[in-house]
Amino acid sequence: MKNILGREIPESIQGYGAVKPFKGAFASLGEIEKKSVAIKPAVPGEKKVLASIQEAISKCNIKDGMTISFHHHLRNGDYVLNMVLEEIAKVGVKDIKVAASSIFPVHAPLVQHMKTGVVTGIYASYMSGSVAEAISKGELKNPAVMHTHGGRTRAIASGDLSIDIAFIAAPTCDTYGNINGVDGEAACGALGYAVADAIYATKTVAITDNLVAYPACPIEITQEHIDYIVQVECIGDPKGIVSGTTQITKDPVGLKIAKMTSKVIETSGLLKDGFSFQTGAGGTSLAVAAYVKELMEKKEIKGSFAAGGITGYLVEMFEAGLFESIFDVQCFDLKAVESYRKNKKHQGMSASMYGNPHNKGAVVNNLDVMILGATEIDTDFNVNVTTGSSGMIMGGSGGHSDTAAGAKLAIVVTQLVKGRLPIVVDGVTTVTTPGETIDVLVTERGIAVNPKRQDLIEKLEAANLPIMTIEALKEMAEGMTGVPEKIERDDEVVAVVEYRDGTVIDVVKKIKD
Amino acid sequence: MKNILGREIPESIQGYGAVKPFKGAFASLGEIEKKSVAIKPAVPGEKKVLASIQEAISKCNIKDGMTISFHHHLRNGDYVLNMVLEEIAKVGVKDIKVAASSIFPVHAPLVQHMKTGVVTGIYASYMSGSVAEAISKGELKNPAVMHTHGGRTRAIASGDLSIDIAFIAAPTCDTYGNINGVDGEAACGALGYAVADAIYATKTVAITDNLVAYPACPIEITQEHIDYIVQVECIGDPKGIVSGTTQITKDPVGLKIAKMTSKVIETSGLLKDGFSFQTGAGGTSLAVAAYVKELMEKKEIKGSFAAGGITGYLVEMFEAGLFESIFDVQCFDLKAVESYRKNKKHQGMSASMYGNPHNKGAVVNNLDVMILGATEIDTDFNVNVTTGSSGMIMGGSGGHSDTAAGAKLAIVVTQLVKGRLPIVVDGVTTVTTPGETIDVLVTERGIAVNPKRQDLIEKLEAANLPIMTIEALKEMAEGMTGVPEKIERDDEVVAVVEYRDGTVIDVVKKIKD
Repeated sequence: MKNILGREIPESIQGYGAVKPFKGAFASLGEIEKKSVAIKPAVPGEKKVLASIQEAISKCNIKDGMTISFHHHLRNGDYVLNMVLEEIAKVGVKDIKVAASSIFPVHAPLVQHMKTGVVTGIYASYMSGSVAEAISKGELKNPAVMHTHGGRTRAIASGDLSIDIAFIAAPTCDTYGNINGVDGEAACGALGYAVADAIYATKTVAITDNLVAYPACPIEITQEHIDYIVQVECIGDPKGIVSGTTQITKDPVGLKIAKMTSKVIETSGLLKDGFSFQTGAGGTSLAVAAYVKELMEKKEIKGSFAAGGITGYLVEMFEAGLFESIFDVQCFDLKAVESYRKNKKHQGMSASMYGNPHNKGAVVNNLDVMILGATEIDTDFNVNVTTGSSGMIMGGSGGHSDTAAGAKLAIVVTQLVKGRLPIVVDGVTTVTTPGETIDVLVTERGIAVNPKRQDLIEKLEAANLPIMTIEALKEMAEGMTGVPEKIERDDEVVAVVEYRDGTVIDVVKKIKD
Repeated sequence: MKNILGREIPESIQGYGAVKPFKGAFASLGEIEKKSVAIKPAVPGEKKVLASIQEAISKCNIKDGMTISFHHHLRNGDYVLNMVLEEIAKVGVKDIKVAASSIFPVHAPLVQHMKTGVVTGIYASYMSGSVAEAISKGELKNPAVMHTHGGRTRAIASGDLSIDIAFIAAPTCDTYGNINGVDGEAACGALGYAVADAIYATKTVAITDNLVAYPACPIEITQEHIDYIVQVECIGDPKGIVSGTTQITKDPVGLKIAKMTSKVIETSGLLKDGFSFQTGAGGTSLAVAAYVKELMEKKEIKGSFAAGGITGYLVEMFEAGLFESIFDVQCFDLKAVESYRKNKKHQGMSASMYGNPHNKGAVVNNLDVMILGATEIDTDFNVNVTTGSSGMIMGGSGGHSDTAAGAKLAIVVTQLVKGRLPIVVDGVTTVTTPGETIDVLVTERGIAVNPKRQDLIEKLEAANLPIMTIEALKEMAEGMTGVPEKIERDDEVVAVVEYRDGTVIDVVKKIKD
């Protein structure tokens, strides 16, 4: 069958089940149900601290077929996922499903667990490195399921993704399970992606290298949700956790795009008191933030909030009084961690509060402007950030689809051509984010506005910004690179791309060798 | 039938249903289930702010028989419960159940709604004033159900108490439903009792007199859980909300009891680094805190936390470095509000985190010492804080049973005789807290230790503290007052006293005129 975007999708997928096809970004907002949770209450006096991961696995009664979960705040410095899976493999259980909020190159040992059948399923909102490559080549038994950050918490809360054991990497944990991310060697700041896991998993295990006396205030994830605690020598490599080097681009093309983007924002009419803003940690995105900062200072605009994964750059804007507050789901650098540690208006948020479409209103719904990247964007404004044009998985939505759906002005910023490949294409290799939620594309050669935004087209025209149709941008790109050949792929589905509401927006097929 | 304490309780109670008899303080810790929740997700762009309470009631589809809830952080200054019920009465619905976390004299208009049949059921953890009197006299159609603070959240999460519409009195609320208690005219600090209502109610309405621009950071109750917002002129009278006058007693008898209590604590061996402590806001309890403070300073002891409803006195101890942190479920005065506003180690907690027996571990489980009051205590150490000796309801557990069950050393402090009535009696009029969870009774005439604490008896004897049997204290009290006559009561059950696990520990019968 074809979904509403015309993507060909099987009605049922082996190892995934029946497909609910994507029907539009806001088609599923009827009444929903959050699942019931069965837990074992603590007996007063009972100790939660165990001697080893092995003991925790055993106390949690791990069994073939179970789903275990991880969060990715330690990013490419994370040691916990590998540590736990190594112990699970030793026990001899098979057919484990790994629900990691994201997977990084550091998680390469997972490939071996896929080959031995210890791991047969993977859920993630983003993946890069060997695991993504192995999945793309068909080495995982069941198709991987790719969520959005908000969609992952929706899936967990609804029971679509039922977690048996959640493992929480805890930079600091006290002896009764209160966790924070602001203290300890592996301090990573906000722990927003782990919250749903802690609430909805049957069993939750905190893995920490900084076990402290009760209580570990300020608390991000509370003792109410933690069954067991294991102390290990090291949960992660700080160099991989926080880069500390999120920098504004120096590339003139990137700066040109950023400058034009700031003009789009200025012209949109949204840049006024109460302005809210989100951007990623990429060099061009940060350059947009820098130009927006200049504009806000010049016009003496007091914004309401910056949101998302937080960089030191946004903290500087906040500390300069340009934003009233920050909503933080994960900290990208130490400056963000430090601000989150000390300032009550640097507000943590769960991934559900951030982007879950099935609660009473996520933070993304209140975003004025969102700056997004793209690996490809097609003439319907559909964006791919999941696969390269070769079909290899090298990313995923993360918060891309969530913020695009929520923001009043969702802007994709990209060079027209990257590595001799056109970025603007007829049809994207994989749809991550539907075009109906993208308002503008800014490239160094010109700006395309989604035709549904006639209001915006008029404003940008009046301001003499270089707007053109997205088809014109596509032709310009193809003029530079030639029309890329269609890649051939196997029929086997290796990954199912779920939109934030759990419908299937696309599938990824096995790449041919 | 008789429950394990020998209290005579019907097997089924009209208007309440089948009774699960109390079987011991820790008899119900098997696997439990938290209920599923059906909600209506927000559509991006949809506004939550409505024009009036009347509009909110209508949007929530109020119907006969529904359960509506309130929290009591505004205490005897609360205007919200009365305002909402007045509007509900206008609509003409009947048979409403009111689940208020506590009820105060200010809620007297509720009596009229009981008489007209608008309100036919009441759930509360504490009640005083006209409503309590009217219930005692049989003026509510169904028996009132009295919870503990932790038991109330247990009941809400399990579905035993299913809330259709929660009304949250919000000292500050933004236009998307983020709530805090630290700003606004009615600032009351922590909002711990309202958290379960917000999470588990089908519909949640914030009532605020301080509607601010988005977002109202720091956020205590998030937008994820709020359907509608109504702005009113005033949600409460600050004079009734925070007294600002919680003072140490000057009464020599109270001071003597407090001094002896501090010696019991010192002798128990618990007063060492990591010490944790909770006490109420009463004059004798605060005097205990003052003596404990002296001891901690003298011995250079660094405690871990103070918990509970928080007074300025505990904040002073915290700020003096005697405690690492504070766990706060409600603030009793402005000094506590101010500390909660600014200090990240002054940690808010939900009532569930505070005292729910059915989560993975409540804060009460980590308490070293709890100072408790009593209206009566019997020779089995059962405590009554629910009714006067006439049988009139004039209180309720609040956190009494929760903290007694959790603390390593639960101490009841009271004068031996009050208002010519003995406090130590053969059998209490109503059991609120079971004797198995009480360790010590301190009166001005002597100290009685629960016989199950032989270890403590030995320590106190060795320290030459005036210990005696509780029977001896009872006789001493009766020697002063004479043996009180048994009061006669009607057979009709007017209130069911639930222990924190939802079993029935006692019932209150209608008083005879």
